[in-house]
Amino acid sequence: MTTTTLSHDALTERHRPTLEQALEAIRTRAYWSPHPEHPKAYGETAPADGQAAFEALRGTRLDLGQPGTDGWAGGEVSPYGVELGVEYPHPDVDVLLPAMRAGMADWRDAGPELRALVCLEILARISARTHEFAHAVMHTSGQAFMMAFQAGGPHAQDRGLEAVAYAYAEQIRTPLVADWSKPQGKRDPLELRKAFTAVPRGIALVVGCNTFPTWNGYPGFFASLATGNPVLVKPHPRAVLPLALTVQAAREVLAETGFDPNLVCLAAELPGEGLAKTLAVRPEIKLIDYTGSTAFGDWLETNARQAQVYTEKAGVNTVVVDSTSDYAGMLSNLAFSLSLYSGQMCTTPQNLLIPRDGIATDAGHKSYDDVVADIAGAVGKLLGDDARANALLGAIVNPGVRERLDAAAGLGEVALASREVANPDFPDAVVRTPVIVKFDGAKPDAEAAYMSECFGPVSFAVAMDSTADAVELLRRTIREKGAMTVGAYTTSAEVERRIEEVCFEESAQLSLNLTGGVYVNQTAAFSDFHGSGGNPAANAALCDGAFVANRFRVVEVRRQA
Amino acid sequence: MTTTTLSHDALTERHRPTLEQALEAIRTRAYWSPHPEHPKAYGETAPADGQAAFEALRGTRLDLGQPGTDGWAGGEVSPYGVELGVEYPHPDVDVLLPAMRAGMADWRDAGPELRALVCLEILARISARTHEFAHAVMHTSGQAFMMAFQAGGPHAQDRGLEAVAYAYAEQIRTPLVADWSKPQGKRDPLELRKAFTAVPRGIALVVGCNTFPTWNGYPGFFASLATGNPVLVKPHPRAVLPLALTVQAAREVLAETGFDPNLVCLAAELPGEGLAKTLAVRPEIKLIDYTGSTAFGDWLETNARQAQVYTEKAGVNTVVVDSTSDYAGMLSNLAFSLSLYSGQMCTTPQNLLIPRDGIATDAGHKSYDDVVADIAGAVGKLLGDDARANALLGAIVNPGVRERLDAAAGLGEVALASREVANPDFPDAVVRTPVIVKFDGAKPDAEAAYMSECFGPVSFAVAMDSTADAVELLRRTIREKGAMTVGAYTTSAEVERRIEEVCFEESAQLSLNLTGGVYVNQTAAFSDFHGSGGNPAANAALCDGAFVANRFRVVEVRRQA
Repeated sequence: MTTTTLSHDALTERHRPTLEQALEAIRTRAYWSPHPEHPKAYGETAPADGQAAFEALRGTRLDLGQPGTDGWAGGEVSPYGVELGVEYPHPDVDVLLPAMRAGMADWRDAGPELRALVCLEILARISARTHEFAHAVMHTSGQAFMMAFQAGGPHAQDRGLEAVAYAYAEQIRTPLVADWSKPQGKRDPLELRKAFTAVPRGIALVVGCNTFPTWNGYPGFFASLATGNPVLVKPHPRAVLPLALTVQAAREVLAETGFDPNLVCLAAELPGEGLAKTLAVRPEIKLIDYTGSTAFGDWLETNARQAQVYTEKAGVNTVVVDSTSDYAGMLSNLAFSLSLYSGQMCTTPQNLLIPRDGIATDAGHKSYDDVVADIAGAVGKLLGDDARANALLGAIVNPGVRERLDAAAGLGEVALASREVANPDFPDAVVRTPVIVKFDGAKPDAEAAYMSECFGPVSFAVAMDSTADAVELLRRTIREKGAMTVGAYTTSAEVERRIEEVCFEESAQLSLNLTGGVYVNQTAAFSDFHGSGGNPAANAALCDGAFVANRFRVVEVRRQA
Repeated sequence: MTTTTLSHDALTERHRPTLEQALEAIRTRAYWSPHPEHPKAYGETAPADGQAAFEALRGTRLDLGQPGTDGWAGGEVSPYGVELGVEYPHPDVDVLLPAMRAGMADWRDAGPELRALVCLEILARISARTHEFAHAVMHTSGQAFMMAFQAGGPHAQDRGLEAVAYAYAEQIRTPLVADWSKPQGKRDPLELRKAFTAVPRGIALVVGCNTFPTWNGYPGFFASLATGNPVLVKPHPRAVLPLALTVQAAREVLAETGFDPNLVCLAAELPGEGLAKTLAVRPEIKLIDYTGSTAFGDWLETNARQAQVYTEKAGVNTVVVDSTSDYAGMLSNLAFSLSLYSGQMCTTPQNLLIPRDGIATDAGHKSYDDVVADIAGAVGKLLGDDARANALLGAIVNPGVRERLDAAAGLGEVALASREVANPDFPDAVVRTPVIVKFDGAKPDAEAAYMSECFGPVSFAVAMDSTADAVELLRRTIREKGAMTVGAYTTSAEVERRIEEVCFEESAQLSLNLTGGVYVNQTAAFSDFHGSGGNPAANAALCDGAFVANRFRVVEVRRQA
C-alpha cells in the first residue's frame, strides 16, 4: 500500500476552483484557459531547466516501475535528426493487465470528485514541466519548438482538463443517494433508499499518434481515468517520450494520493510488433481511444467489439472560396493554414474549391488563376524567410509524408512548388514548404487524387464550374471521405446558408470568412469542438457528453427504507 | 405545407412546467410522475370510451396517411384469443425513407426546446387515450388489464418523458451562441462569434417487442425524436396496434404544430418478411433501438454498422438468498415477482441461489428444501384464486413460451408444477402459473439449464454449497449471460458488501431485501435505471446521458466577430 502524502483536502484547495472554472467554460464556451501559452510564463529558469531535463532523458532507460516488464523498447529518432535513445518498458501483457485492475475498486470508490482532483493534479505536474514536454513533443512530432510548446503543452493540457470537466459533470448528473417515496393513497407510501455508483468499464487503451501525442492523447486518457478506468497508453513508436512522461507524472500523483500507480501504465512496443492490435482485442480492454489512419481505425471499430471505440481517422478538409470582402486577409489566413506544421494536421485544408470563372473580392474580380497564384504567392511570402519558415513548418514527421509530397507534384499542374528549407540548428531535419497542385473539377479522372487524403503539405486548388458545384462537392467529400474541418469564404448570405446547411446535414465543423489570427485548423478547448463525430473522419468529438458518457455505467443499489 | 394550429406559445404554457419537473426528477431521482396510475383518474367515462375506441379499431384499416404504402399488413391475434383484424400500412422503403427525411431540416431548426414540447404534446395525447392503449397492450402482449394499463400506459409514458428530459438536457449543455475573445497581450484580442446547432443523425428505427411494445419502445422513440431524428417504428408483428396508435398520435401532433407528419412513420411487416433486417442496414438508418432476442440484437450490433445501435437482449436474472429478517415478506415478495405477467418480463428473476445447508431467518433456520417449498407455497397461495391469478398472470404471450414452460418440468425435480388457470372472460387465453425446478449447483450437468435464459414463468431453485459460491455464480452469470436485475436477501453486512461488489464490477442493478410492495422486476422512470448497459443483457440503460448523447451531434459555425 502506498502512503498518502497529498490529501483530499489539499487537492480540493488546490484544484476545486479550476474545476469549477472549467465546468463554467464548457457551459458558456467563452475563452478560458488556466495554462499559459507563453513560454516566459513558466518562470525565468524554466526554458533552461526544461531543456536540461529533456537532454538528461536522452540515452537513458525510463523505468516507470511497472509490473510485468519483460524487456525494453525504444529507438525514437527525432524528425530533426536527433536520436533520443530512451528505453521504455515493454509489457508482458498477461502480467500487466491484471496488475492494472488491482487498484480499480479503490479508484472507483474514490468517487467522481476526488478522481477529477487527482487528474487535475496530474495535469498540474505536467504543466509545471511544459518546457520539458515541449522538447519531447518537438523531437517526436517534428513540430517547431513554439508549436510543440503550445499545442503539445497548454493546448493539450486544456483538452485534458476539458475531458475531466465533462467526465465529472456527467458522473454527478445522478445523485449518490436518493430517497424515493411513492404515495399509495390511504396506505403507507412505498419507500426505498437508493444508492448510485459510477462504475468503470475496465481498462482503457489509448493508442497514441505520431504528430500530436499529447494533444490527441489527453482527451481519451483523462476522460477514461476520470471515469474510474485504469489507462494503458500504447504510444506511436515514433512518439513515445511525451506519453511516457505523462504516464510517469500520473503514476507519481496516483501514488502520492494513496492510489495504485498501476492504474496508469505504458505499453511501448518492439519494432514491427503491432502491439495495439494485440491489446485492442484483449477482454480486459473496454475502452479504446485512437488517432491515426482510417485503415486501423476501421479495424478497431470492426474487431475490438468488447470495447467502446473512439476513433479519429483520416478526412479530406475542404475550403470553399466563393467571394470575400477581405482578399488580402483571406490569402494570408489560408497561407498560414496551409503552412503550419507543414500541413501535417488532421485539420489542415486540402481541397480549395474555387469557381473557374473567378470570385468577387474587395480588390476586384479575381480569376481562378489569380486566386491560385495569389494563394501561392502568399505562401511563398509567408515562408520566404528561412528562419520564419522553420518556425512555422517544423520538420517532416516521417518518410511517408515526404514521399507523398514528392509524388504530389506529378499529379497535375503545380501552382506552387515545394522547396527545401535549411535548418541551421538541425541540419538533418527535412523541412519543406507546401506544394499546391491545380485540378479541373469537371474532369472525373482528377477526382481520385483530390478525393483522397494526402496527409502533409499538399493542397489542391480545384477549379469548379460554379459555387453550387463546389457546395455539392463539399457535401460529397464530407459524406464519403469525412472532414475534421470545413472553411468557406463568401459575402453571399445565400451561399453561406447553403454551406451551413451542408455542414448541418453532413455533420462537419465550419469556419466562415476567417481572415485574421484564427485559423481553420486550430480549435480551442472549452469552446470549439474538434471533429463532430458525425462524419467518417471521426466517430467522436472532442469533447462532448457522448465522449464521456459511455466510459462508465451507473449501478443502482436499492433497499427498502 | 401543413397549417400550424398549435403554437409554440401554447405548447410552452401547456408543457414547460412538466418538462421542468421531469428535469428536476432526473436530477434528484425522487418519486415523480405526471401520469396517473389509477384507471379512475382518467375521468368517469374514460374506461368505457377507451374500450369502445379499442373495439372500434378492430377489423379496420388504420390508414396513417403515410407516403410509399404498397400494401397492408396485419393479422394480430390477442394472447387472449381475440383476432384484432387491424390492417396497417406496409412500406415501399425506397419511397418512405426519402419522404421521412423531407421534414428533417425544419425539425432540426425547431431546436431542442420546441422539439421537447412537441414530444410532450404527443405524450399528452397518448396519455388521454390511456384506456384505449391499455386494451391495445393487453390484446397484443397478453398482460392482464391492470398491468397493461399501468405498464403500457403511465409507466411507458413516464419512460418516454424521461427520455425527452434527458435529450433536452443533453442538447442544451452547449449554448446556442458564444462570443469568444482571446487576449493577445498588447494586441487586439482574437474574437469569434460561434453558433452551435444540435443536428440529427438521420432516420431512427425502433424495433418493437411483443411483451412491452410501449414501455420498451418509448425511450428510444422519444429520445430519437427529441434529438431531431425522424423515427420509423417497426413493431413486433404480434404487437403492432399500441405502436401504430403511437405513430398516429405523433403524426397528428406534428401536423398540428406545423411539422411534417412523415417525421414519424410505421413500418408494419408481412408474415415472415424480416423487415427489420432490411431496414436496419439501410444507409438512411442511423439509430436503432431494439428489444428482443440476443441473437437478433447481436446481429444488429454486428451488421448495422452505419447506425448507433441500442439493444436490450436476453439475460439471466439471479436472486441470492442468504438470510432474512422477514421470511414471510421475502416469500411473498418473491412469489409476486415470479408470478407477475407469468414471468414474461426481462426483469423477472430466473435463478434463486440458495445455500444447501439452508438460511437463517426470523422464523428460525430454514433448510434449502424448506425455502424452496415455502416459495412454492407462497406462489401457490398467491395464485390460488383464479380471479386473482388471472389478474396477476395475464396470458402466455406466444407458443414458444408455453413450449419452454412445458419442457421445464422435465429439466429436474419440480418443486412447483405449473397449472392451467381458466379465464372466464377469455376462454381461449392460455393462462399458466409458474413452474419452479430444483437443481444442484454442484452438479455441472445442471448448469446448461439454469445458465440459459428460459423466458417465461420458469424459475430454478439452485442449491449452492455456500453463499460464497452463490456470489461467485452470480458474478459468472452476469458476466457470461448478462442480467437486467439482481436481487439478494441477506442480514449480513459482509455478504451485502460482497454482492454489491460483484454488481459494481459486473455492472448490474441490485435490489436488496425487498419484502414489501416494490418488486425486483419493476423499475420506476425518473428514479431507477432499467439495465445498466454494462453487461451482456443490454448495451444501454434506460435512461441516462449515454442513451441520448450520441443521437445528435453538435455542429459549430464560427465567424470572425
